[in-house]
Amino acid sequence: MTRPSLFQALIAEGIGTALLLAVIVGSGIMAWQLAGGNGAVALLANAIATGGALVALIHMFGPLSGAHFNPAVTLALAATGYFPRSRVAAYLAVQAVAAVSGVLLAHGMFNQTLVQVSATVRTGPGQWLSEAVATLVLVTIILRALRSGTAAALSYAVPLAVMAGYWYTASTGFTNPAVTLARSLTDSFAGIRPLDVPGFILAQAAGLIAGLALDRALRSTKEM
Amino acid sequence: MTRPSLFQALIAEGIGTALLLAVIVGSGIMAWQLAGGNGAVALLANAIATGGALVALIHMFGPLSGAHFNPAVTLALAATGYFPRSRVAAYLAVQAVAAVSGVLLAHGMFNQTLVQVSATVRTGPGQWLSEAVATLVLVTIILRALRSGTAAALSYAVPLAVMAGYWYTASTGFTNPAVTLARSLTDSFAGIRPLDVPGFILAQAAGLIAGLALDRALRSTKEM
Amino acid sequence: MTRPSLFQALIAEGIGTALLLAVIVGSGIMAWQLAGGNGAVALLANAIATGGALVALIHMFGPLSGAHFNPAVTLALAATGYFPRSRVAAYLAVQAVAAVSGVLLAHGMFNQTLVQVSATVRTGPGQWLSEAVATLVLVTIILRALRSGTAAALSYAVPLAVMAGYWYTASTGFTNPAVTLARSLTDSFAGIRPLDVPGFILAQAAGLIAGLALDRALRSTKEM
Amino acid sequence: MTRPSLFQALIAEGIGTALLLAVIVGSGIMAWQLAGGNGAVALLANAIATGGALVALIHMFGPLSGAHFNPAVTLALAATGYFPRSRVAAYLAVQAVAAVSGVLLAHGMFNQTLVQVSATVRTGPGQWLSEAVATLVLVTIILRALRSGTAAALSYAVPLAVMAGYWYTASTGFTNPAVTLARSLTDSFAGIRPLDVPGFILAQAAGLIAGLALDRALRSTKEM
Repeated sequence: MTRPSLFQALIAEGIGTALLLAVIVGSGIMAWQLAGGNGAVALLANAIATGGALVALIHMFGPLSGAHFNPAVTLALAATGYFPRSRVAAYLAVQAVAAVSGVLLAHGMFNQTLVQVSATVRTGPGQWLSEAVATLVLVTIILRALRSGTAAALSYAVPLAVMAGYWYTASTGFTNPAVTLARSLTDSFAGIRPLDVPGFILAQAAGLIAGLALDRALRSTKEM
Repeated sequence: MTRPSLFQALIAEGIGTALLLAVIVGSGIMAWQLAGGNGAVALLANAIATGGALVALIHMFGPLSGAHFNPAVTLALAATGYFPRSRVAAYLAVQAVAAVSGVLLAHGMFNQTLVQVSATVRTGPGQWLSEAVATLVLVTIILRALRSGTAAALSYAVPLAVMAGYWYTASTGFTNPAVTLARSLTDSFAGIRPLDVPGFILAQAAGLIAGLALDRALRSTKEM
Repeated sequence: MTRPSLFQALIAEGIGTALLLAVIVGSGIMAWQLAGGNGAVALLANAIATGGALVALIHMFGPLSGAHFNPAVTLALAATGYFPRSRVAAYLAVQAVAAVSGVLLAHGMFNQTLVQVSATVRTGPGQWLSEAVATLVLVTIILRALRSGTAAALSYAVPLAVMAGYWYTASTGFTNPAVTLARSLTDSFAGIRPLDVPGFILAQAAGLIAGLALDRALRSTKEM
Repeated sequence: MTRPSLFQALIAEGIGTALLLAVIVGSGIMAWQLAGGNGAVALLANAIATGGALVALIHMFGPLSGAHFNPAVTLALAATGYFPRSRVAAYLAVQAVAAVSGVLLAHGMFNQTLVQVSATVRTGPGQWLSEAVATLVLVTIILRALRSGTAAALSYAVPLAVMAGYWYTASTGFTNPAVTLARSLTDSFAGIRPLDVPGFILAQAAGLIAGLALDRALRSTKEM
């Protein structure tokens, strides 16, 4: 296989990010519609659908774009030399636009108004701590796999961590600024009030920085 | 292992497709009987059973027939040169007959009237968009894996995408014309009204065409 | 690693079979106690626990005994030359004794009367057809993997097929004469009335024979 | 990759153990809050989150610390020569401190009082037998994989066994003295009354000893 062009990488990164959001939001809508008010059953469906789809999406687009689908991942890889800094801005722009497109796609599939605004309150120190911890976990999984030469495992380890993140955090583990932004535009199970977006993104940034610090502490001299 | 004969490939493709339908319809019947009216619990069981069985079926019959179990997959592979065009008609015929047989088998296992007609309405732009998107995803997973030399991952990536498809689409992600046709013959949880079959199949065809176009855009020169 | 002795193989086969039954029966008891009468939730827990444990048990004991845990598997492998016929009787005896022991172990863990008799009716043509189909599937997964040199996949493909079997069959997919016998000795979620055991075992035998016939049809000349 | 320093191994072991506890306790809190009183749905979420996270944690920290996260595992590996005895005391101390820290972290994420005391009664012969059996299973999975050279499978086999352990045992399968101690400090779904901790740990010790005895019986001469 030849090295994909930047154009091809951006198409892959964009379609993958859009589909990820379509899955998160779409499965949330379906699950909540069917769950008869039982939030645990709805969240279980939401989590399993997201985790399963993420395995497929990483396999689909990993060879083309690296399958980041997440500005925090792109920044973590750029900061550690695993991703060219010259491509960061393009990736972040595509991830943001694609994430919003994916939410619109989910609304289209479920015959809903395309552009919505979430009313779901997600705020407070517990949720911010949750986002920081879950982002730290995500960054650490990826960087440790790259440092120890086991990156092939990421297509399962990352989706399973995301699936678990729905449950072990108080915030359901967004861990992704583009996803957070886009989920403010759906008034459904997966939504977040626009007012609460900055708190989540700041917490994710803190988790990213903590992840980079942990990487430095765990990295052996020869690995550098 | 020698190359299987066409006869052996067709037996494998047929039994695999029949079993896939028996699982989709059978697990839907069982899940709905037990779920006490909670559709989310029923769909969770239906999705997990289908995904789990599909992993097993792809392992069972992949080496013999390629484990398409789906006319859209056969056509996508033929259009891209991964499957001999001379075998397409035979595959499609076997898939259709086998899919219907699998529905009858499920009815037999659950002591139901063998031939039924579904009354479940599944129609409208949202569901058609859903079928197009989910078929595009399926085709893209398969073609990207073949293009990048990671086809071994398909036995997990495809079933997980199908499992997620139950949730992220408004149509529960049929993505398969033979499956759609056969599911019109069961008046159970997994059914679809015969009147709604053409809309689903047209949407799947649109998804297939979009998948082939995306493949062309993502394919690097040397891969061709 | 040296070839394990027959004694070591029988210990492994016995402990593995006992643990499999402890999981099937124990998770059924736990699930039914907690599910508040929702049979689908209980069966989902039962199926996921059985599938997950089976992955672990096959990894644990596969290298020592082959991890059959099932007379139908032992007979299928002996009939096709993958298992020495001289060891069949010992395996079958150990599987039967171990399966019963595993049921007692589950009862011990849940503070129940050790020896019970099931009152759960499981009979009729639909359930017999179910057992034949699910046993055919199990035998075919195993023999196809051995024929095509992909036996390593069995540690996931078989457990996922068993997990799916809880749902797509009307009988919940026992597929195992030793398991069937032992489950007649628990008056809990996983039980089967002793009167109904022979029908299940006969149906499993039919599935085994059909699986051997299918293997013959699918086997290429050079594979023989 | 260079051999990690003891300091790096202890950081990895500590963070991994803390995160494991944060997942067990956090997902228990989330699941119980959402499950509307249905214990089976809550336990299903708890089990799936724990299993999924454990796959990720073993991938993250396995290359650095071995990813024991459990004094019973550390002792089993030291007793069989797979782990240096000189490091046992440090590992056990870190595991205990980290496990407690992980519980506090979960409480912090869910805006709860950081230090709590559990009131959940978990005692009696059935639960002790359960802990002994589940610990024996855990130790046997690990030692058999090391003896047969299939240790790479542990990152899936162990989490799936832990997930199944939530269901097939009457105790939900703690199997870990550090986890047991730490879970006495949360008055939530995953808690255990401090008074009941010694019984669980003694039962786990019995399971560990039984696991070492079984390893001796199953080990072939040349493997030693």
